[in-house]
Amino acid sequence: MKNLGILGSTGSIGEQTLEVVRKNPGDYRVSALAVMGNISRLKEQIQEFQPKLVAVFDPDRGKLLKEEIIKLKARGPRTKTPEDNPNYPLFRVKVLVGLEGLVAIATSGEVDLLVNSVVGSAGLVPTVKAIDAGKNIALANKETLVVAGELVMQKAREKGIQITPIDSEHSAVFQCLQGEKKESLEKIILTASGGPFRTWKKEEIEKATYRQALKHPNWAMGRKISIDSATMMNKGLEVIEARWLFDVPQEKIETLVHPESIIHSMVEYVDSSVIAELGVPDMKVPIQYALSYPERIKGDYEKLSLSKIRNLSFEEPDTRRFPCLKLAYEALEAGGTMPAVLNGANEVLVEAYLQEKITFYDIPKYIKMAMEAHTPFEYTTLEEILEVDRWVRDYVSNTLL
Amino acid sequence: MKNLGILGSTGSIGEQTLEVVRKNPGDYRVSALAVMGNISRLKEQIQEFQPKLVAVFDPDRGKLLKEEIIKLKARGPRTKTPEDNPNYPLFRVKVLVGLEGLVAIATSGEVDLLVNSVVGSAGLVPTVKAIDAGKNIALANKETLVVAGELVMQKAREKGIQITPIDSEHSAVFQCLQGEKKESLEKIILTASGGPFRTWKKEEIEKATYRQALKHPNWAMGRKISIDSATMMNKGLEVIEARWLFDVPQEKIETLVHPESIIHSMVEYVDSSVIAELGVPDMKVPIQYALSYPERIKGDYEKLSLSKIRNLSFEEPDTRRFPCLKLAYEALEAGGTMPAVLNGANEVLVEAYLQEKITFYDIPKYIKMAMEAHTPFEYTTLEEILEVDRWVRDYVSNTLL
Repeated sequence: MKNLGILGSTGSIGEQTLEVVRKNPGDYRVSALAVMGNISRLKEQIQEFQPKLVAVFDPDRGKLLKEEIIKLKARGPRTKTPEDNPNYPLFRVKVLVGLEGLVAIATSGEVDLLVNSVVGSAGLVPTVKAIDAGKNIALANKETLVVAGELVMQKAREKGIQITPIDSEHSAVFQCLQGEKKESLEKIILTASGGPFRTWKKEEIEKATYRQALKHPNWAMGRKISIDSATMMNKGLEVIEARWLFDVPQEKIETLVHPESIIHSMVEYVDSSVIAELGVPDMKVPIQYALSYPERIKGDYEKLSLSKIRNLSFEEPDTRRFPCLKLAYEALEAGGTMPAVLNGANEVLVEAYLQEKITFYDIPKYIKMAMEAHTPFEYTTLEEILEVDRWVRDYVSNTLL
Repeated sequence: MKNLGILGSTGSIGEQTLEVVRKNPGDYRVSALAVMGNISRLKEQIQEFQPKLVAVFDPDRGKLLKEEIIKLKARGPRTKTPEDNPNYPLFRVKVLVGLEGLVAIATSGEVDLLVNSVVGSAGLVPTVKAIDAGKNIALANKETLVVAGELVMQKAREKGIQITPIDSEHSAVFQCLQGEKKESLEKIILTASGGPFRTWKKEEIEKATYRQALKHPNWAMGRKISIDSATMMNKGLEVIEARWLFDVPQEKIETLVHPESIIHSMVEYVDSSVIAELGVPDMKVPIQYALSYPERIKGDYEKLSLSKIRNLSFEEPDTRRFPCLKLAYEALEAGGTMPAVLNGANEVLVEAYLQEKITFYDIPKYIKMAMEAHTPFEYTTLEEILEVDRWVRDYVSNTLL
């Protein structure tokens, strides 16, 4: 029985993680949950999973939850024992607030495995603190590795902890590397669906609304990652993530457009053999693998039938229509703090695009400008990289926009 | 440096094994070679690779080689030292004859790893003797496992020796199983090109000549295996091979037609993840892997480029047009000695088809009749299974044909 702490439990990955827990009641217990601000859904999750600890990142929403629980307690009902009370899980749970709340969960003695599915660089500090506390991590928060991958993976190696990726592509690579030696690896090939605009002309993409961008062909995902998929920045971020997670230089990481999203990624070895992981697109499969690793546990997920699918297709990514992918390689090339600049700028700009303040191609345009305004340096502490993150968000919001 | 003994060195797999040795001169030494009867090519191989030991299965051809070497020695030339003589490798080599010759190589102290690429059930006895002598085996001779897989694998387990498959499909499965636990395996999916008649109507296949059957779309192979590929008996034999090699019941072994032969085979796990091995069709890659396992060594083989190939396609195998595949499952179902009957009958019938004595669909027809004439039993010794093999060859040749 593994005790899970889940950061971002009301998001898409968080909810699917809870679904995996529901399917495997004997294997996992939910000890702690953290959310950004969705306390109404958190209350339902508390009732169902009865965690000992919850945290709310937004302090006002956290305070509200505490107050609601106090009112509930005051209202009753008066039952013989607390356990008879239908609201007992809410009475029992300890509510924490803010980043410190997330960190408290990440480092709690109640948690064996931390599932970090926070969106954006807010996931970074809890990840680092969890590593310091010696926790294994199932990581969906790719920005952690994009922003500070070198530092995070170095700490993980020092502490001897295991980071299992939840991203379907990185889960695929991770699986393809099992039983193989690192020196045998020739190339990582990350597949990309190509997003909703794969077949669109550049002039059409230029005018794309965020509603069109949110319509991902294969995966049901959150809003931020859906836009990143439309710009193909998602694949760029994944290249950076793979760079650090697998300790492989960027020249050895390629991307390949594969619209059906059946081959989730591949590893080419020095003898020209390629190992791939395939499956029906369903995030619950890599989530379950990240939880169960090094075991595989039976799941009633849809089985792949290639004879029903009949065809898998492949094409080179087009960086003319999707310049974000190229920017990610350039950020890795520039090194040091530059990927953090790319990521921070992208987060602000995706939000601006969702609010219809900028157009689709303004995203790469302003990212490029932010990168040009920054001189990258080799960072050695979390504080340095967080300062760069703050700087770029401020610069993009207040100078560029 | 591994010392190799190669049985069947002038065949397609044998020649490609020598090509792999040429590419990796620091890793492998050829200590022993055995051929069925092609002594003119064997002489060239002796000159190039300077083995200490050779064997010729056909006794007459073996005697001829011995005589030729004696004549060569008598003729000179008279050089100061034997090493100056261009024929020195031929002067030095020890020539053995018959099945005993093959067994002597299979069990020789000069051999670390036995490559068994003999075609047909002639490979069985040397394989078993090599296992008894504690040799690791790179196995291309699929009939060994088809005929006596249960016995062979049990002996291999008892002796703690490693059998690495050379067949591209089994090499793929073997690679996909690395780092995974056996209890996690849900299904083996063997891919099949579908052979030269994949798109032909049944009435057209009925009249197919052996020359048409020999034209395999993707792989350059020997004659026997090319015909087996056209009937899809090759896939049937591979199902039986996989049954024993991986100790997986036949219900968990599926076949899938994949005309491009890029995905060489797959393993589905209990969590619905599928791991596949891919590559450009080139037998030298699985041969090299079988030699280098558990290492991978760098090879200058053509790299897979899926964006150039653009499409991979898949379809269910059609056992109406290719009944041999179904017969193989039926033989496994019947159990015991029945796969040996299927295999022995098939070998005789493929030869008869190549000699234009029977038609294409006579092959499955007579195999079925041979299977119906046999009551399978559980064998425990090599002698029992060899007797069944002799019986079925005689029965097909002298009663059915």
